[in-house]
Amino acid sequence: MGKLKAFITMSADGYVAGPDQSEENPLGVGGEELHNWLVRLKAFNEAHGREGGEVTASSPVVEAWFDNVGAEIMGRNMFGGGPGPWGDDPWKGWWGDDPPYHNPVFVLTHYEREPLEMQGGTTFHFVTDGIESALDQARKAAGERDVSISGGAQAIQQYLDAGLLDELEISISPLLLGGGARLFDNLGDPAAIELEQVRSVEGVGVTHISYRVGRS
Amino acid sequence: MGKLKAFITMSADGYVAGPDQSEENPLGVGGEELHNWLVRLKAFNEAHGREGGEVTASSPVVEAWFDNVGAEIMGRNMFGGGPGPWGDDPWKGWWGDDPPYHNPVFVLTHYEREPLEMQGGTTFHFVTDGIESALDQARKAAGERDVSISGGAQAIQQYLDAGLLDELEISISPLLLGGGARLFDNLGDPAAIELEQVRSVEGVGVTHISYRVGRS
Repeated sequence: MGKLKAFITMSADGYVAGPDQSEENPLGVGGEELHNWLVRLKAFNEAHGREGGEVTASSPVVEAWFDNVGAEIMGRNMFGGGPGPWGDDPWKGWWGDDPPYHNPVFVLTHYEREPLEMQGGTTFHFVTDGIESALDQARKAAGERDVSISGGAQAIQQYLDAGLLDELEISISPLLLGGGARLFDNLGDPAAIELEQVRSVEGVGVTHISYRVGRS
Repeated sequence: MGKLKAFITMSADGYVAGPDQSEENPLGVGGEELHNWLVRLKAFNEAHGREGGEVTASSPVVEAWFDNVGAEIMGRNMFGGGPGPWGDDPWKGWWGDDPPYHNPVFVLTHYEREPLEMQGGTTFHFVTDGIESALDQARKAAGERDVSISGGAQAIQQYLDAGLLDELEISISPLLLGGGARLFDNLGDPAAIELEQVRSVEGVGVTHISYRVGRS
């Protein structure tokens, strides 16, 4: 069985999205700046089917996100759209016709919906019976490979809180957001979560820290 | 004129002290673990007049804390003791007879007190008329050298908020405290504070990130 791992970018003051998140501005005020380090990279452009971009110390870090991944899990907001039922002609999410996942993606939601097959090997499956069910389904789809949580913060928090997450990589951006969604929020017993630093990498305008996650 | 710089250790969830801080437990529940990476170092022992300890990638980071420093500023709690007046036979603080500063130290307090001259070149001066006065006095004492804020969080926050801090180095420890004193709290307009990542260093069980601080 593979690992369950998550990758997310956080501000120096601990936020993964800024204040006043909305459907129009899902990353909140100032939140897009979190990813300045990422969107300049060739590895990022390639994952989105585009050309150009830089190669930096962050490039192997980002390439490793996709290594040995056989399935993804994401929250409803990360897929696209706000709260409430999907409607009669539901939107196909933020990720375009050829999403960068190229794998089965299990979307945590309260509302049922038929699977959505996109180009390039991505199929979105909508899971309404909880995070453990989503993980079971993702593990089956991934076989021996890893399952990756694409975000957002709430999805990562739920798996962290349930003791199911094996690895967490935080990319720390040099900015203060001062409000919004904190990565380490909504945890029942944070002090019981043990982090072991596996490695850290100095990027350009970012620092990547990988943790192995355990429970005391 | 030298720079104003600060060094502090923070948990992965943004705390520099754990919950339930008290005079007996100034770092709060779990807070001592923040400094596991530090107390094992030879560079730390040497600063405290002790022998032994390890040399790691963190050693030059810690040695650089003391480079070119001509004066220190610290909060009252960092000096030692709780709130309220000093009393008739006041305590000489946490730092022993030969404190590791070997420089004039300006302590931010609401209560006047005569300067306290210790061994090894450390004299504590008690400043009651605010952070700018303390900085002026420290700069005079430091001459062309830098002024370093030894902590705690509140002292750093006040200088950060006033736009007076030039450099901030955060050492991120692999643990979650889940409560306590946040480094980036009590700031009037956090988003106006600009951070530029100068460098980061992978230590053993810690990651050091240095920021140049500016204002938009």
